[in-house]
Amino acid sequence: MAKVNVLFHSTQKRTSGKEGFNMTIQTDESMIEKQDITSMLEWLSSFGKTKTDGVTRLLYSPTWMKAQHALKQEMEACGFQTYFDSVGNLFGRIEGKDKLAKTILTGSHIDTVVDGGKYDGAYGVMASFLAVRNLFEQYGAPQKTIEVVSFCEEEGSRFPLAFWGSGSITGKYNLNHVSSLRDSDQISFLDAMKDAGFDPDQYISPVRRDIDHFIEIHIEQGQILERNQHTLGLVTHIVGLRRFTITVRGESNHAGTTPMPFRKDAVCMAADFISYVTKKAKETDPHLVATVGKITVTPNVPNVIAGEVEFSLDIRHHQEKVLGQFYDEIETYFQRIAFEEEMDVAITKIVDVKPVEMNTSLTALSKTITSEKNIPFQYMISGAGHDAQILGTFCPTSLLFIPSKDGISHSPKEFTNADDLQTGIEVLTEMLYKLAY
Amino acid sequence: MAKVNVLFHSTQKRTSGKEGFNMTIQTDESMIEKQDITSMLEWLSSFGKTKTDGVTRLLYSPTWMKAQHALKQEMEACGFQTYFDSVGNLFGRIEGKDKLAKTILTGSHIDTVVDGGKYDGAYGVMASFLAVRNLFEQYGAPQKTIEVVSFCEEEGSRFPLAFWGSGSITGKYNLNHVSSLRDSDQISFLDAMKDAGFDPDQYISPVRRDIDHFIEIHIEQGQILERNQHTLGLVTHIVGLRRFTITVRGESNHAGTTPMPFRKDAVCMAADFISYVTKKAKETDPHLVATVGKITVTPNVPNVIAGEVEFSLDIRHHQEKVLGQFYDEIETYFQRIAFEEEMDVAITKIVDVKPVEMNTSLTALSKTITSEKNIPFQYMISGAGHDAQILGTFCPTSLLFIPSKDGISHSPKEFTNADDLQTGIEVLTEMLYKLAY
Repeated sequence: MAKVNVLFHSTQKRTSGKEGFNMTIQTDESMIEKQDITSMLEWLSSFGKTKTDGVTRLLYSPTWMKAQHALKQEMEACGFQTYFDSVGNLFGRIEGKDKLAKTILTGSHIDTVVDGGKYDGAYGVMASFLAVRNLFEQYGAPQKTIEVVSFCEEEGSRFPLAFWGSGSITGKYNLNHVSSLRDSDQISFLDAMKDAGFDPDQYISPVRRDIDHFIEIHIEQGQILERNQHTLGLVTHIVGLRRFTITVRGESNHAGTTPMPFRKDAVCMAADFISYVTKKAKETDPHLVATVGKITVTPNVPNVIAGEVEFSLDIRHHQEKVLGQFYDEIETYFQRIAFEEEMDVAITKIVDVKPVEMNTSLTALSKTITSEKNIPFQYMISGAGHDAQILGTFCPTSLLFIPSKDGISHSPKEFTNADDLQTGIEVLTEMLYKLAY
Repeated sequence: MAKVNVLFHSTQKRTSGKEGFNMTIQTDESMIEKQDITSMLEWLSSFGKTKTDGVTRLLYSPTWMKAQHALKQEMEACGFQTYFDSVGNLFGRIEGKDKLAKTILTGSHIDTVVDGGKYDGAYGVMASFLAVRNLFEQYGAPQKTIEVVSFCEEEGSRFPLAFWGSGSITGKYNLNHVSSLRDSDQISFLDAMKDAGFDPDQYISPVRRDIDHFIEIHIEQGQILERNQHTLGLVTHIVGLRRFTITVRGESNHAGTTPMPFRKDAVCMAADFISYVTKKAKETDPHLVATVGKITVTPNVPNVIAGEVEFSLDIRHHQEKVLGQFYDEIETYFQRIAFEEEMDVAITKIVDVKPVEMNTSLTALSKTITSEKNIPFQYMISGAGHDAQILGTFCPTSLLFIPSKDGISHSPKEFTNADDLQTGIEVLTEMLYKLAY
């Protein structure tokens, strides 16, 4: 584990609970920093805390509003200029000396899944805040302006749309994309937005033309770093994702009176397809993942041969070509087997997200910093989606990972130890320093 | 198709609809008989007819009561002595000349599944009624008493217990087996019984000690006869059935961030098990059937690797030894794979019904009759359960099948053509004649 290199002391006196971070100055420098991020995450998790000690903070909900406004106050208390854009992204700005230079943006998202953890998104926001606060307190104004962003939405948990925050500042999304959306309570997206204080009638394009670089730090949400005993993951790519619904149609029949050779059993064919997909994914490429997570059998009765099975297929890889070849192979197999068995298979594509490569110069920079500090690190491919994938096609972007205990995420059990949380901040701070000072 | 050998003319004048069969005498003898069984099944199906032209006639329901009482009346009109036993089995008796001889019993069940067909059970009751009526009208009183039975219940559709009718007369079941049962509306079995006119307080053991032979005729509910273009199936065995719930437990994880080698994917293991079971069943014995009809995945979400899969397994064969060996093989395979993959598998037995052999002398008799009449026939194993399997361990029993169109059963689409319905009655009539006259 790398030694914690504390850059400065916080001198800000804060109050407790939802009012502030409950921080007091201590003499042991590293302890202060570790307590800082841990207590800040604890504080943020108080907005939307669930009975299971998880967090539910859905876009434009009252707890979401309170969290964004409280965070704004905290930033202001540390000398940041703060503002919301018209969709609810919160920015905390430290103005650079070079007025012509573009802005270094760093942050992540404030929203969570239902009963999620304290770290997903929140860590990236808080780590960015702490890193920039530290730099500002130690070195004063940077050359280039730095902004910390708390994106309004990334998870797609309330409305059927994800990346609303980063999608809005990059021009991927605008009001047209959300005007017909409703949440599970039938509240429209635009009404929810207005209720949270972001009146769609006052909408001004939130697209940013001044972003120089974007850096996001996030928990891994997987077990790779932990298994390899690495503290930092330098993400080179975020995977592309294709999701399908596969429908296999056979003939529903009596389980007792239909001999095996007469059957057109949709469960058997689906089982064969699932086994094939899994085997093929393992053979094709170590970075390829293929998942069948959802199965619906009709009629789903023990003594009736199933006439229909619908299953989901989620495939991910960082190279579009590999995804394409893999899909072609499994489609060929599905069609061939269905033809041989005189059954039907229908494949519907539900999601198609292209892979995104992170900026190689930024990755090289993070590698230099991590090596210099003797932090155990590795290059990684992100199998999950992040705001960095939206920014990655918009400006030079970097994504850093820290370990997730047991790889658990989207759960109250989400956990990363204080040392790893702190190491991430340290690397992020150094990167921002190199880019902005 | 065998020539229809009409034994006699019905001279009973009947009224229409629920009041009676709506039969009038016609000059073409075979036409009379064909119309007879078809119109009688149509008439019986009017008790509990559904919107989809199916039949729902659940044990002790008002439509069930009306059907049993209407049938009682029809039997009486044809000269049968009729009575109910204390659980609601209806008997129509033609007293034999030999008062010391035991009784020849023939019939099937009156109850149906929800939205079932017109033939399952009903055909056996009506065919027996017609056969005995024909014999009585043509030859008068038999040597041995013959009784037609309309069993109160076989399907297990209302309460979680099947074969209540045949189980009651054989002593397999008594009130103790049903006293705690409730239907889906929380009506207790005993209350339903009482409401239908069979007061449990008046219960007298319905066990019969006087049964000589039992003969049941039924639709096949499969496609074997139709595919082989055979009109009659002589059932040699009714299969044994074992039903299990298999629970596979792995680890729920993120579909994007968990590389294939790290996974403990319950869906993949279940798919492998299902494929193995199917392949092994095909290899083991042509009469063995194995069905996975129900699958429940947890959490059943496209982007989450499933932590648990529960699936049903239904295996049937007419030899207990084959069932036992097959089960042992798949259990060994399941446990070995689960051990290798460091996952868990739990197997719970839900149902265990032993195979039953039909009486070989009766089968020989039916074979002789069928051959003499040049009726295309074959020996068969019944993959479905029937009252004959309960009687089969109690007295010499015979089960005959006639074809089911497309093998469809338990559906409003259930259908058997009039010629086949009639051929079945013809063989049954001859068998009863040989046994009772």
